[in-house]
Amino acid sequence: MQVPFLKMHGLGNDFVVLDARAEPRALAAETIRWVGDRHRGVGFDQLITLEPAQDADVFFRFHNSDGSEAGACGNGTRCAASLILNETGRSSIAIRTIAGLLGAERLPDGTVRVDMGPPRLGWADVPLAREMDTLHVPMAADGVSDAACCSMGNPHANFFVEELSALDVFRIGPELEHHPLLPERANIGFVQVLARDHIRLVVWERGAGYTLACGSGACAALVNARRRGLVEARCTVTLPGGDLVIEQRADGHVLMSGPVATSFKGELTLG
Amino acid sequence: MQVPFLKMHGLGNDFVVLDARAEPRALAAETIRWVGDRHRGVGFDQLITLEPAQDADVFFRFHNSDGSEAGACGNGTRCAASLILNETGRSSIAIRTIAGLLGAERLPDGTVRVDMGPPRLGWADVPLAREMDTLHVPMAADGVSDAACCSMGNPHANFFVEELSALDVFRIGPELEHHPLLPERANIGFVQVLARDHIRLVVWERGAGYTLACGSGACAALVNARRRGLVEARCTVTLPGGDLVIEQRADGHVLMSGPVATSFKGELTLG
Repeated sequence: MQVPFLKMHGLGNDFVVLDARAEPRALAAETIRWVGDRHRGVGFDQLITLEPAQDADVFFRFHNSDGSEAGACGNGTRCAASLILNETGRSSIAIRTIAGLLGAERLPDGTVRVDMGPPRLGWADVPLAREMDTLHVPMAADGVSDAACCSMGNPHANFFVEELSALDVFRIGPELEHHPLLPERANIGFVQVLARDHIRLVVWERGAGYTLACGSGACAALVNARRRGLVEARCTVTLPGGDLVIEQRADGHVLMSGPVATSFKGELTLG
Repeated sequence: MQVPFLKMHGLGNDFVVLDARAEPRALAAETIRWVGDRHRGVGFDQLITLEPAQDADVFFRFHNSDGSEAGACGNGTRCAASLILNETGRSSIAIRTIAGLLGAERLPDGTVRVDMGPPRLGWADVPLAREMDTLHVPMAADGVSDAACCSMGNPHANFFVEELSALDVFRIGPELEHHPLLPERANIGFVQVLARDHIRLVVWERGAGYTLACGSGACAALVNARRRGLVEARCTVTLPGGDLVIEQRADGHVLMSGPVATSFKGELTLG
């Protein structure tokens, strides 16, 4: 069966988008891993299937390259939302995901902003392994300690450091991702506060590893930096792939804005 | 302009193939680097353009992901040759490259065999920086010494070791690639002889880095292992991505056989 797809990216955080609204596509984990192979398949940080929704314009399902399902994917939401915004010609849409209902809109400068909803700050929401203050979680690895954790639909742990470039992210990232306090693992974000409206961030993504940009990770970093009193409600977040603007509204909702791009369109042969 | 392409691979050594036979496509180095970006473009080890040839069925031009041009590319030749074999329905074809005229044929088991021509063994052919015996070139890095060099249309330096897994290829590969004795740099192949008909090989490719399989590197490894008296004329070469069969005929020509696969077809927007 020939299946059309789009390859898109937000700041180099890249996605294969499959439209499964007209006909369902149940993808085996083995198929997802093959499509995710950058040499033998297509390659992606996340694969997104567009599915029908009863109470929203569309349902987005996010798959990691290891075959697991991701609850939230901020940049992927922005990329796939831009397709629906183009298709409908509307300025805003509602998106259902397994992590909740999200809103997305096209800004005048062409960037796409997504409302990622409010963070969840309880220990069981992240989740952590046992009851504790999510603002000071006793996790440590070489060069980092004292994590701040939250859920943005998926679990995040942030470490605040003086100098990001001193960290060996490829070594401590996977170590922290599998920390015993994180029963469902987590995205590990390393944060350097540059100013009260500017932070630098590198994320080791759960199930995906090092990525050029993690949208939900940028949201979590702003939320946790605010909880620590380090930044204002609106920040530029500089990731290896470029900048996102993250803003937390008075009602707690976190908004993420940034560019989206289509790399190419393709057609896969799926069995 | 919408430009169709195919993504193919031989043992995970992957290629973007553009057909420029009907209309020429002069690709700027900047465009090639973008297409080669695995997150923002398509991603490849080499990009191959099919061009018209006067004295052969087709001309193959090979581009590295850094924008430079490669003289020879064994697995890429096999992949793109399979397209021409399918298109013509013939059992063998002639291919012009900047490194010479190559022949390719479809074997009964579906694999594609390419005649890479004879190796060139003179110091100026490789090329090396000054006159010396190409069978014992005084190059060394951590864990390796005493290179055997040849040209398979592109320069190769091989190091023979007891145990490949002991090497830090990502560190010594780029160091050796830029050795002062190699004025045009070289593909650096690390060879472990398992039996007189079986060698294991890891290649650090000039301009491409670590790859799952380097076809011309497998040819060079067989040639140099034979020159050192370590193997017979026909060997299985086990690369990280899988096995190739390499055979040197009595007339010196080196034949490479192995599988080819199409990952997907796509369409790029080029300026």
